[in-house]
Amino acid sequence: MAALSFETHPSEYRRFQLRVEGPLATLAMDVPEDAGAGDYVLKLNSYDLGVDIELADAIQRLRFEHPEVRALVITSLKDRVFCSGANIYMLGTSTHSFKVNFCKFTNETRLYLEELAAESGVPTIAALNGTASGGGYELAMACEHIILQDDGNSAVSLPEVPLLAVLPGTGGLTRLVDKRKVRRDLADAFSTIAEGVRGKRAVEWRLIDECAPRSKFATAVSAAAARLGETAREKSGPGVVLPKLAPERLGNVTKYRHVTVSVDPDKRVATVTLRAPAGPMPRTAEDFRRAGADLWALRAFRELDDALLDLRFNQLSVGLLVLETEGDAAAVLESDQVVAELAESDWFAKEVLLLQKRVLKRLDLSAKSSFAIIRPGSCFAGSLLELALSADRSYMLDADGGPTLQLSPLNFAGLPMSNGLSRLETRFLGTPERVAELKNQTAPISAREAAVLGLVTFTPDDIDWDDEVRIAIEERAAFSPDALTGMEASLRFAGPETMETKIFGRLSAWQNWIFQRPNAVGQKGALTLYGSPERAVFDYRRT
Amino acid sequence: MAALSFETHPSEYRRFQLRVEGPLATLAMDVPEDAGAGDYVLKLNSYDLGVDIELADAIQRLRFEHPEVRALVITSLKDRVFCSGANIYMLGTSTHSFKVNFCKFTNETRLYLEELAAESGVPTIAALNGTASGGGYELAMACEHIILQDDGNSAVSLPEVPLLAVLPGTGGLTRLVDKRKVRRDLADAFSTIAEGVRGKRAVEWRLIDECAPRSKFATAVSAAAARLGETAREKSGPGVVLPKLAPERLGNVTKYRHVTVSVDPDKRVATVTLRAPAGPMPRTAEDFRRAGADLWALRAFRELDDALLDLRFNQLSVGLLVLETEGDAAAVLESDQVVAELAESDWFAKEVLLLQKRVLKRLDLSAKSSFAIIRPGSCFAGSLLELALSADRSYMLDADGGPTLQLSPLNFAGLPMSNGLSRLETRFLGTPERVAELKNQTAPISAREAAVLGLVTFTPDDIDWDDEVRIAIEERAAFSPDALTGMEASLRFAGPETMETKIFGRLSAWQNWIFQRPNAVGQKGALTLYGSPERAVFDYRRT
Repeated sequence: MAALSFETHPSEYRRFQLRVEGPLATLAMDVPEDAGAGDYVLKLNSYDLGVDIELADAIQRLRFEHPEVRALVITSLKDRVFCSGANIYMLGTSTHSFKVNFCKFTNETRLYLEELAAESGVPTIAALNGTASGGGYELAMACEHIILQDDGNSAVSLPEVPLLAVLPGTGGLTRLVDKRKVRRDLADAFSTIAEGVRGKRAVEWRLIDECAPRSKFATAVSAAAARLGETAREKSGPGVVLPKLAPERLGNVTKYRHVTVSVDPDKRVATVTLRAPAGPMPRTAEDFRRAGADLWALRAFRELDDALLDLRFNQLSVGLLVLETEGDAAAVLESDQVVAELAESDWFAKEVLLLQKRVLKRLDLSAKSSFAIIRPGSCFAGSLLELALSADRSYMLDADGGPTLQLSPLNFAGLPMSNGLSRLETRFLGTPERVAELKNQTAPISAREAAVLGLVTFTPDDIDWDDEVRIAIEERAAFSPDALTGMEASLRFAGPETMETKIFGRLSAWQNWIFQRPNAVGQKGALTLYGSPERAVFDYRRT
Repeated sequence: MAALSFETHPSEYRRFQLRVEGPLATLAMDVPEDAGAGDYVLKLNSYDLGVDIELADAIQRLRFEHPEVRALVITSLKDRVFCSGANIYMLGTSTHSFKVNFCKFTNETRLYLEELAAESGVPTIAALNGTASGGGYELAMACEHIILQDDGNSAVSLPEVPLLAVLPGTGGLTRLVDKRKVRRDLADAFSTIAEGVRGKRAVEWRLIDECAPRSKFATAVSAAAARLGETAREKSGPGVVLPKLAPERLGNVTKYRHVTVSVDPDKRVATVTLRAPAGPMPRTAEDFRRAGADLWALRAFRELDDALLDLRFNQLSVGLLVLETEGDAAAVLESDQVVAELAESDWFAKEVLLLQKRVLKRLDLSAKSSFAIIRPGSCFAGSLLELALSADRSYMLDADGGPTLQLSPLNFAGLPMSNGLSRLETRFLGTPERVAELKNQTAPISAREAAVLGLVTFTPDDIDWDDEVRIAIEERAAFSPDALTGMEASLRFAGPETMETKIFGRLSAWQNWIFQRPNAVGQKGALTLYGSPERAVFDYRRT
């Protein structure tokens, strides 16, 4: 199979039309039946990964390229159909790994929609001009406001349990009770009614926010967009255009401008190296605009993001990411300082920071182990130190003239994890006073100091370094990948839970379990047999 | 296979010695190698379900029969071995359902230990006179204080990931980072070091609270018990002896004094009926003591508890519990009122309430769907109304002279779910003002009122009742049991997460997934091959 690429552009979209008319953006889904990547027909605006790649791209471009937008309406160009969710034949014929990675990516994209409203101040409206079922309704629930056409036919539904014996796993069950706070018994009933719920009952059950007859639907959508858009944040233009990253791929090495990924397929290890900024440093909002997409803080993290998606989807056998950095720590700290300061007042700087946050979350959520390797020449400082704090472990060489770490304001605020805490707060849950003490730690930190401060895991000396690091990497790459995934999901996100950690930690884990069960994916399973004349046969032992 | 029974008595224990000497109770593990229920040898204090049945019984009896106890020490009678966790051959040869049910029960028992300390005020000390590995260390982590013998050999360890390709799923990973707040990178390292961590390093990593050389170990344990016991609550004797429930089993019907379970194997439905108290009502602490284990509020819930365990382990094909009640609602309300009032001052009444809480949590956590069926003659009032609030749905007949519901103080406090909220608070997360309003609702509530108040799901009238209830039950019992388990786990526990919901929602879900993966349970899986000369072969694709 050809490697999947996550880069696209509105001019290349095949599943959406993105229209920006002054303060209103409309993203209208219109999936051609032949747009699928496999041997299935994308009927009724059902989707495969391509839809989410375009959706993620559209959200990103709205944030950076269209500061004038004050509301986003998501709707469909098909008559009486909004979206019928993930294509079932696609799911039925996909490998377990692909299903799991696909669901994770779609979950991330839904959260980006919610962040667009919550953090970038662009309200999102799901204009359901027809039935929204399964992933279609899950997409709607990721919007702040849902309007359903009341035509005696259009419904919202989550038919996964009754029809397919799997879960509405793109946040569906979690958002029902935790975001929309649908009463749990009504959520239970709703999740088993394949045909869904329509009109006023859908409002009463809190499944949607309003319904409007067909004749008044467009007016209701415009009114909602105008009403919600009133509270949107004013952002001065122009936008910052995002060119494709177009990395150079040479065998097992992928080179971006600031990021290099080098895969060792035999060892099942990928070394991901981030390089610090070089050259003159932009210091003002004007400098930032001039630099645009070339700004290191933006470009380097976009590159890391693309690299992580590539590793997830195209490098399934890679189990361990070795995280390295290179370059001038002072330059990273200066970049962080400017981003942190400007983000308070400048929308572009704020979007850069929000993007860094999202990319680091993507790293936390990747089902790969990660070790940070801190050696001479590295620059684990500020936003790049977050890589080491995100890693499952870190190894730092303890030697004269050895590497140092440094903290920046971004280590304390602006880059929270899915649990709502900074990586330092998560790390020091048992000794929260440490985080406050670290704020005074402005000088470079040696390996010995870092060990005492609890910032790194192991600090071998010159003599032990090579063997200890090599053995640790070999050992990690030899463990069962499934056990590691479950272990990391349990250890990485201590502390408070959020809707986000519930989606990735609880809902996804149950879905992954079900994606292994014969009742769903066996020869007689419901997902396998969907659409065939044969009926699923279940093993009824409850577990 | 013979049906499993969960009733036992210290005189019948084969795996523990329970000694009560004044204020100090000691539970010493000494598992005979031939005590297993299957074809495996329980070496090194490894365990199967029998250990947990005795452990759960011992905790329960300490609470009710031994109010004089002010500290509990858990230790081992084997030299240099505390406990090596769940027996691997037992796990390797068990069905998926049994593994999952076994882990859930052991998790519940660990939480009971924590509740013994937190709610009943009996501090718990794990006296590790030898290595505690896997479930053995997980048992230690469920105690408030862990002392490890420092003899150059005894260690604590979680070798599941490196040796077996499964998780430390009895709360292990969660308690490491969420209870003991071990730093996540140290937790990561610890969870992959098969031989574990010893002595001072174990203290530094927060894995244990203290270590003591062999010569001073007994003194250190006594000192800790005395120190922690100082803050224990004073409870006036005598204790209340708990006789066995010894239900009568006739074919598919199991009859307890206040509970009847009737299984329809063809429909895969069990009807669980609780009967209200009858006869004179105990009103004072003295009346309560006189009634002892015959007190309805205690006996009825102990019976429900036993019935739930029987349904989980012995009735795997039952997918739906139909919850019914019979009798005089006023008597239930009176019982609740007295329990709620006395629990403030009387330890026995408090233990009764805590037991009711635990049993209702067991119901919430059971992997069976549940519908409350509210018909004439029923008494869904107060503590029995919690059954309907725990149910996935409720059906209440709307007819003249039809059934009513009633609230008691116990619906508002004293019976929280795993998420720390009452069932009413969880139900009305979206409209919290409803809970406050309901406090004024002291009169019986008709079906129509209950529908408006949101206390029940559906209220069919006479004409529709039979068909609607029958079809709902048939439909539910026909869905994929796996999809229902995942759905219910996601919908039942909205709102805040606690360590408890993380253990059951996140850790258990990942473990269940791993328990299906060929890398653990396939022919070449690590769990399957453990102890054989063959090495496990892994599929290294990360998911």
